[in-house]
Amino acid sequence: MIRFESDYQEGAHPKILEALAQTNFEQTPGYGTDRFCESAREKIRAELKAEVSGIHFISGGTQTNLLGTAMCLKPWQGALSADTGHIAVHESGSVEATGHKVLTLPNTLGKISAAQISAFCREHYASLTAEHTVQPGMVYISQPTEYGTLYSLKELKDIRQACNEFGLKLFVDGARLVYALACPENDVTLSDLARLADAFYIGGTKAGALLGEALVIRDAELDRSFRYLLKQRGAMLAKGRLLGIQFDVLFTDGLYREIGSHAISQAARLRAAFAGAGYAFRVPSPTNQLFPNLGEKALRAFEGKYALSFWEDAPGGKVMRACTSWATRPEDVDALIRDLPKA
Amino acid sequence: MIRFESDYQEGAHPKILEALAQTNFEQTPGYGTDRFCESAREKIRAELKAEVSGIHFISGGTQTNLLGTAMCLKPWQGALSADTGHIAVHESGSVEATGHKVLTLPNTLGKISAAQISAFCREHYASLTAEHTVQPGMVYISQPTEYGTLYSLKELKDIRQACNEFGLKLFVDGARLVYALACPENDVTLSDLARLADAFYIGGTKAGALLGEALVIRDAELDRSFRYLLKQRGAMLAKGRLLGIQFDVLFTDGLYREIGSHAISQAARLRAAFAGAGYAFRVPSPTNQLFPNLGEKALRAFEGKYALSFWEDAPGGKVMRACTSWATRPEDVDALIRDLPKA
Amino acid sequence: MIRFESDYQEGAHPKILEALAQTNFEQTPGYGTDRFCESAREKIRAELKAEVSGIHFISGGTQTNLLGTAMCLKPWQGALSADTGHIAVHESGSVEATGHKVLTLPNTLGKISAAQISAFCREHYASLTAEHTVQPGMVYISQPTEYGTLYSLKELKDIRQACNEFGLKLFVDGARLVYALACPENDVTLSDLARLADAFYIGGTKAGALLGEALVIRDAELDRSFRYLLKQRGAMLAKGRLLGIQFDVLFTDGLYREIGSHAISQAARLRAAFAGAGYAFRVPSPTNQLFPNLGEKALRAFEGKYALSFWEDAPGGKVMRACTSWATRPEDVDALIRDLPKA
Amino acid sequence: MIRFESDYQEGAHPKILEALAQTNFEQTPGYGTDRFCESAREKIRAELKAEVSGIHFISGGTQTNLLGTAMCLKPWQGALSADTGHIAVHESGSVEATGHKVLTLPNTLGKISAAQISAFCREHYASLTAEHTVQPGMVYISQPTEYGTLYSLKELKDIRQACNEFGLKLFVDGARLVYALACPENDVTLSDLARLADAFYIGGTKAGALLGEALVIRDAELDRSFRYLLKQRGAMLAKGRLLGIQFDVLFTDGLYREIGSHAISQAARLRAAFAGAGYAFRVPSPTNQLFPNLGEKALRAFEGKYALSFWEDAPGGKVMRACTSWATRPEDVDALIRDLPKA
Repeated sequence: MIRFESDYQEGAHPKILEALAQTNFEQTPGYGTDRFCESAREKIRAELKAEVSGIHFISGGTQTNLLGTAMCLKPWQGALSADTGHIAVHESGSVEATGHKVLTLPNTLGKISAAQISAFCREHYASLTAEHTVQPGMVYISQPTEYGTLYSLKELKDIRQACNEFGLKLFVDGARLVYALACPENDVTLSDLARLADAFYIGGTKAGALLGEALVIRDAELDRSFRYLLKQRGAMLAKGRLLGIQFDVLFTDGLYREIGSHAISQAARLRAAFAGAGYAFRVPSPTNQLFPNLGEKALRAFEGKYALSFWEDAPGGKVMRACTSWATRPEDVDALIRDLPKA
Repeated sequence: MIRFESDYQEGAHPKILEALAQTNFEQTPGYGTDRFCESAREKIRAELKAEVSGIHFISGGTQTNLLGTAMCLKPWQGALSADTGHIAVHESGSVEATGHKVLTLPNTLGKISAAQISAFCREHYASLTAEHTVQPGMVYISQPTEYGTLYSLKELKDIRQACNEFGLKLFVDGARLVYALACPENDVTLSDLARLADAFYIGGTKAGALLGEALVIRDAELDRSFRYLLKQRGAMLAKGRLLGIQFDVLFTDGLYREIGSHAISQAARLRAAFAGAGYAFRVPSPTNQLFPNLGEKALRAFEGKYALSFWEDAPGGKVMRACTSWATRPEDVDALIRDLPKA
Repeated sequence: MIRFESDYQEGAHPKILEALAQTNFEQTPGYGTDRFCESAREKIRAELKAEVSGIHFISGGTQTNLLGTAMCLKPWQGALSADTGHIAVHESGSVEATGHKVLTLPNTLGKISAAQISAFCREHYASLTAEHTVQPGMVYISQPTEYGTLYSLKELKDIRQACNEFGLKLFVDGARLVYALACPENDVTLSDLARLADAFYIGGTKAGALLGEALVIRDAELDRSFRYLLKQRGAMLAKGRLLGIQFDVLFTDGLYREIGSHAISQAARLRAAFAGAGYAFRVPSPTNQLFPNLGEKALRAFEGKYALSFWEDAPGGKVMRACTSWATRPEDVDALIRDLPKA
Repeated sequence: MIRFESDYQEGAHPKILEALAQTNFEQTPGYGTDRFCESAREKIRAELKAEVSGIHFISGGTQTNLLGTAMCLKPWQGALSADTGHIAVHESGSVEATGHKVLTLPNTLGKISAAQISAFCREHYASLTAEHTVQPGMVYISQPTEYGTLYSLKELKDIRQACNEFGLKLFVDGARLVYALACPENDVTLSDLARLADAFYIGGTKAGALLGEALVIRDAELDRSFRYLLKQRGAMLAKGRLLGIQFDVLFTDGLYREIGSHAISQAARLRAAFAGAGYAFRVPSPTNQLFPNLGEKALRAFEGKYALSFWEDAPGGKVMRACTSWATRPEDVDALIRDLPKA
């Protein structure tokens, strides 16, 4: 079985395992204060080309999202998110468990717009009973989105402006950021994110690390006591070096970019093949996730050979998700393309 | 510098790194449902020799403790703990962040007793204003304790009985359990813990894993929906295999026991040397942590050569903590013993 | 200005003020343990004609709702509610502040159905990633609803059955229950609610009390420690008698029924007048709230004379809410009817 | 039976009941926006003689305390309090239920000092593992304390200075403030509190109101969105006028001062009598609470005639609490004095 179900089904990029082995017996202090974490922070800062206050390494996406909302929001505030946003749908109520409501806006291809945010806030503050509803305190978006689509730099700047107008923090989930950055259609750089978001993260788990996300906090006030929160929510690893070493490797000699490029080029091959064979896509996603609408014929042809993940039912078949990653083998892509029937 | 500051200053036991490398390209489903996790669970169950409902792998100790309290307590309940308990002192208010108070009892050598628990509960329920105070809902202890001391089987059984009498859950923090189990003075087995505690965990982070604790839940009711909580608090790793592989290795061919024995034997050598040189100990701890009271002479002799961690000031010097682990090299112990001046 | 904006714009029914004055100097113990609370509980129990575990008096609706959800839900669970439900929209995220998500279902005239609940739960448990979403743990409905509509006994029984099938608690918000009970269209009695709901409440604030809701808890397990929660959330009044005296009066000599009947008969007069003059209603609500769709002509005619509350914009005008209550004066209704222009 | 058990065992001061009756049929908007609340706010502001941002009326003390801590603290912070503080002991973990730890300092006659606060903070920030413990974020004190003792203006100013030095908010629980203000020994005015505390409250429940506390928030930033929090925690009454009317009465024609003076003078008579008869006091409390140490003889003499509340066991007897209030009748004090045996 060749699996295209997700971008986290293998272990880690081999260079990461090598680095873990090489450094294994070095004794370091714990809790993210070791020299590997420091080195990784410096390398990331060099890529950001922008002033940020802190960089913190965290085990996974849900944890980073819940720390981000807990950090950004006052007790009576909620987080604006697309109704398809990961925090709105797939994190078991993690934001609510920190005491905050997720305020959903209808998505367009997984995205929300500055106009929607402004309209929501304007209506909120215009209401005579505003205090009987949840005050919007931040905007949560992800780049790329749940549907693999991208915010443009223009869209991001507009959202920032809306945030400024209504006193909202802007938090960007970058669990799959590696695949956005490598995408020809993308015009949002790490530096843009560092300047426009109050906090954002650079995903590691889905980019070849065993685990780990690098949370970048621009604002000094938010950053100052963040490590208390990190510890309080069980997110501060005793062997913090495990995360530092991995990000240090990812940001050495362009490995992070290389991982992204590889996945994007393999995704492009799959995309062209599906399109060429006459399949429609649920959304036009330019990143490492594809959502072809497959009929019975294709599903039967794949059975037992190629695993995609089920997304939703669709007229005449099923929308399936195919993912590529750092680990996708070109020969596996070749094989699927070869076996793909006409729609 | 030779470091005895903690038992988590190196990476992982080499066998763990080997296993990660060997399995690296195998594709698995995520979130702890892979074959490595299953295998690790089976091996742990075999050691437990007792019926338990579930075994879950979690990144670290604070996270496991907060999940445990959130799982065991009703909203108006608190956790009884020694005033030196990790949840009471060193977890940044993680239990309070889940909405619960830690109800502290004065420790004796890091321990609390069944008699203290019963007295607290009796007084609570006898009060006319019981409802104006926090209802005790669980007991939190650790084996070994923060001071490296051990509960005996008799003490543990008595605590279980007190819990039964007052409707309390019993949760045992086993972050350093490996070092209790390997200790000649210890008479509490894994099987005893599985039968006496509602939930307990087998520490990995301090026992040679990169990270990871194995939470064992006896009660079916507590276990049934635990994975929701795991996800909600950001504790469910996408690449859950990372934890499964490690525990699988630790519980293969007696590695877990071997790691414990090694650390305990090196700790015994240090203990004998300190005692022989005339040093007193803060507490008589039989496990992998020693708390010698060192004067200026010893502190100067160690300077720049041996790192211990500061514990507290004491008359005539400082109580320092020395830890051994799976990674402690006998020749490093030799060296320290050689350089240790008379008290 | 004659006000029909809400049912809580006056003080209290005169009999309540009389009782407060008469009992004022009697010394009682605090916290809801006084003889007035006891007497009120007995009178309510007599009306319920069903076995219930506890009756607790609470200051207001939002507080009762948040106590109810905190009591019913496990940490990883959420409350199913109509998307128009008070907890979903108008309580400032109070449920989320207790750590729980409100899971909304699309309403039909303010109501949700057993079929919707079952479908939601079936889909939830069928999902391979159920644990990545919020587990439904209870159903929240109100009688009457936000739109003044009523659940029939058949609908309520079906919801109870769906709750049984999926392990859900059923909580009924009865802030305006007095007006449902007095409604000719209603076939759900207090006794039905006591038997079908795990907990429900009998509103006082909108039924002539200064403040206060009587929460009825059927289940012994939920009730046992409820007073801890009551105190913990700041809902236990030192002078609990204030609530006891009021409910004692409301449930003496049928005052509660009388209050309901009066409001319903005045609402019926308004309803007939609006209908007769050619106005449509946003929803066909048989209780004390009416939602006529008023055009410019009517709005101008009312200006400065009759206050209704704005509900929403509508084609050709505005949907306005008119409420009657225990305090509505028939002559005020006469006046409005007299001044009501043809649509 | 003549009861001196607490200061909340009667209804309300007759002037309050009169005002409720007189205003009963006036129609007002809800939620604390009515003219009575406005009038009460103006009268309180006039007494404060200091710039404050907002005044909010809340049902009770526990609720006000939990709103205050939720308002003042960041998620990772805790509240410093005397170990005898009401939030530390008698509120069922209400602060913890908002996610925060109560950090206790040992009390001296119910009080904590600026020196203790500074020492705690200095030690906290000096620690290498500060982030593994709870960051102090505010100081909670009450005036008078649980033991009826008073902070002097000098002590309060010192505490304010310590708060400034370590970035702490200062919150003063004034549930019994009326009795402090009327006390000859007291040198802290309402105006001092308004200038020195970030927030404090003027108790109503124990000062002749049916219920209600007036929370005064000095800081504009804290005040701006406070009403969201008020609503979210179920503390915003629909008929907010009920609180407004009461505080309006209390602050009209010096009633608040009169209530305090009456209670203090009756307490002074009791104090002199107990002292004269040879009884010792648990603490030298100058306010409306006395804590005489009574032996068997006195307890028997009181049996069935005078009720005091049990405080704690003491050598040779029991410490009992006697309270006076606005409602204490001089002839009842006469009677007790007459029946008091020599110690």
